[in-house]
Amino acid sequence: MSTKYAPAQRVANQKQDVWSIINEAAAASPVQPIVNMGQGFFGYNPPQFILDAAKSALDRVECNQYSPTKGRPRLKKAIADAYTPFFGRKLDPETEVTITTGANEGMLSAFMAFIEPGDEVIIFEPFFDQYISNIEMPGGVIRYVPMHPPADGAERTSSAANWTIDFDELEKAFNDKTKMIVLNSPHNPVGKVLSKEELTRIGELCLKYKVIILSDEVYDRLYYVPFTRMATLSPELAQTTLTVGSAGKNFYATGWRVGYLIGPPNLIKYVAAAHTRICYSSVSPLQEAAAIGFEQADKVGFWNAAVKEMKGKMDRFCQVFDELNIPYSIPEGGYFVLANLSKVKLPDGYDFPDHLKDRPRDFKMAWFIIVELGVAAIPPSEFYTDERAHLAEDWMRFAVCKNDDVLEHAKERLRGLKKYMQS
Amino acid sequence: MSTKYAPAQRVANQKQDVWSIINEAAAASPVQPIVNMGQGFFGYNPPQFILDAAKSALDRVECNQYSPTKGRPRLKKAIADAYTPFFGRKLDPETEVTITTGANEGMLSAFMAFIEPGDEVIIFEPFFDQYISNIEMPGGVIRYVPMHPPADGAERTSSAANWTIDFDELEKAFNDKTKMIVLNSPHNPVGKVLSKEELTRIGELCLKYKVIILSDEVYDRLYYVPFTRMATLSPELAQTTLTVGSAGKNFYATGWRVGYLIGPPNLIKYVAAAHTRICYSSVSPLQEAAAIGFEQADKVGFWNAAVKEMKGKMDRFCQVFDELNIPYSIPEGGYFVLANLSKVKLPDGYDFPDHLKDRPRDFKMAWFIIVELGVAAIPPSEFYTDERAHLAEDWMRFAVCKNDDVLEHAKERLRGLKKYMQS
Ligand SMILES: Cc1ncc(COP(=O)(O)O)c(C=O)c1O
Ligand SMILES: Cc1ncc(COP(=O)(O)O)c(C=O)c1O
Repeated sequence: MSTKYAPAQRVANQKQDVWSIINEAAAASPVQPIVNMGQGFFGYNPPQFILDAAKSALDRVECNQYSPTKGRPRLKKAIADAYTPFFGRKLDPETEVTITTGANEGMLSAFMAFIEPGDEVIIFEPFFDQYISNIEMPGGVIRYVPMHPPADGAERTSSAANWTIDFDELEKAFNDKTKMIVLNSPHNPVGKVLSKEELTRIGELCLKYKVIILSDEVYDRLYYVPFTRMATLSPELAQTTLTVGSAGKNFYATGWRVGYLIGPPNLIKYVAAAHTRICYSSVSPLQEAAAIGFEQADKVGFWNAAVKEMKGKMDRFCQVFDELNIPYSIPEGGYFVLANLSKVKLPDGYDFPDHLKDRPRDFKMAWFIIVELGVAAIPPSEFYTDERAHLAEDWMRFAVCKNDDVLEHAKERLRGLKKYMQS
Repeated sequence: MSTKYAPAQRVANQKQDVWSIINEAAAASPVQPIVNMGQGFFGYNPPQFILDAAKSALDRVECNQYSPTKGRPRLKKAIADAYTPFFGRKLDPETEVTITTGANEGMLSAFMAFIEPGDEVIIFEPFFDQYISNIEMPGGVIRYVPMHPPADGAERTSSAANWTIDFDELEKAFNDKTKMIVLNSPHNPVGKVLSKEELTRIGELCLKYKVIILSDEVYDRLYYVPFTRMATLSPELAQTTLTVGSAGKNFYATGWRVGYLIGPPNLIKYVAAAHTRICYSSVSPLQEAAAIGFEQADKVGFWNAAVKEMKGKMDRFCQVFDELNIPYSIPEGGYFVLANLSKVKLPDGYDFPDHLKDRPRDFKMAWFIIVELGVAAIPPSEFYTDERAHLAEDWMRFAVCKNDDVLEHAKERLRGLKKYMQS
């Protein structure tokens, strides 16, 4: 076919992504069905009060039609009210909150709003993979800064806090072209919650270089240690920080595609303008349901129950690693856990598919665990650049946002790792 | 504030758009509440079988979580099955259909998939306004080609078919850099359905210049004359045409944000790749509901009922123009009608707000009708470039997708135009 019908560069590279590799492995496994601890979707439904809210929204004419591009007034108000206590000042729902189609499109809207071709954006490795294409779409140039795994990560279990930032390395990534930095706390996949001290040091650099902070806080309701929000550290940082949230993550409904950004009016208005051009407006009945969710969650004790429940799942699942003497990073937040599988030996001459031959060890390990044990997990080197993929090749990401019987099933299967472990 | 915090060019221009002007006029009007014939959302709910489908989807765990990025298999299959008879060949749901977040984000995905900076895209005036920013986002350059209003549009009512394309003008817009052309049939705001002959001539030019055709057919279930789809004209055109649809438009649920593209595998796969980078995936429970909609619509006679109902609304509403002797373009499809208000005289020295002083006459007319009569409609010169805005300045767009009592109310109020008409 004529090259005149060729795709643009930004989509032409169809390198196989981690999700399709995992799916392929799942299909190839003799152990069926696979226990899926891979992708971060919930294995159970949103709470009943939110489902009821969605159903009743579907009966209302205006909840089935276009919402205002910046979001339904009721949802913006519910979010402003819900976050006002955290932010320590009254948030204005009309100018300081905007609704997007999931956090994902919200972050793309932020990049589209501020990045000109050649502008630089700092992100940490490991990163949520969508950041990359979202920054490159408006022509942004990415500067990567690694989080360093705990030096003794292969030997002993310790807090995810021990994944650390080298602040000299970080400062070297800043320059006159740096337009934005992306933070993620609680972190996917590490489970780290950035400490107040770390945030303060990052914040100082951002103010010095006049950099917009995009703080991805989609797991903001799931923290097991004190959680500080960048936007609340100082009035200066409040003026230069965009906080990203996800009603999908908050309410166990990743398929609802309702996200939001909170920030100062002079940043939010441009995010909203970009969102209008990308999606026009976001899904109406589920915005209404999310509004009711934010209005009622505190009253019905949902947020506390959510933390307790997820922490319970985390503890329940990690028990199998304790049992097997497999070290892991104890999550400070979120629903992912990284286990260090360096003690698991891949059998010599094991038959991996060709396209895995050049991939880091964790990709082979993920394939192996699916095919031999029937448990799907995600190789975290996918969330690194090629140069730094080795930092993650002993680790594996498990999502624990699943029913308890699924967790027990996964544990039972993972006990099969024992026979591949060096003693 | 430092310019380092400044927005990107693509969102910096915050020219007041038509929607906010209309809202402002509505707020300023002494006649309350306004009868809204402006924006194209439905004034009534989706049919009960589709609402029921949405509610039952909300009870299913997997319908509340992330869908595959290309869409739910059930929805892709339902669309492939529903369109197979129109396309005259069996569509493959896995390779020839992809789901997007409304037609809007679907079109953006198509532009992102194929446009490199400097590539040219041909669009007709008047255009759906989102096309512009969506083409410019990946760096596309727009070539505008006007549709010509009927020469006697100010004197007599005639078919929307009389808005015509000058094929010499069209061919001049093609060149080596032309990558795509956007068609819209049935047309918003004109109500024209491109004839088979027109499509054939456009198709020949596109094949000659090897141009990808993006055929926006979101009103494809609302036609009142025979409707031909570009993709069905020839095997060559099937290979080079992307057809865009909207479950929101089809099922009276503009707020659901479920769109789709149908086309050959080698085009669809790149649209899907772009969509993944933009929105990741689209809203799950409403995809499921749309799937059930497409599965059942024929059986329950929904499509026929929809045409009959909308044509009834159109006839009912246009009666007021017949009565007032105001000419209009009789729509061949869709739910918009353009009336020619050249006979309505704006009172000398009428007090328009400053920001309307430099706008074409139709903007002043829209303001006037809202404030004096309490009926909102859209000035169509918004859908033209500045140079050609004059072509539309005597016309006004009314959306008839409203309850019959609303239409009657609007008619009653529009009778008030009489006293401003030259005899
Ligand atoms: C760190 C992070 N940010 C953003 C998202 C996307 O959230 P949403 O589903 O609201 O688009 C995810 C989803 O996994 C995530 O892990
Ligand atoms: C011609 C045209 N194309 C596309 C759209 C957008 O459709 P959707 O609501 O599915 O994004 C509209 C909406 O008004 C339209 O008129």
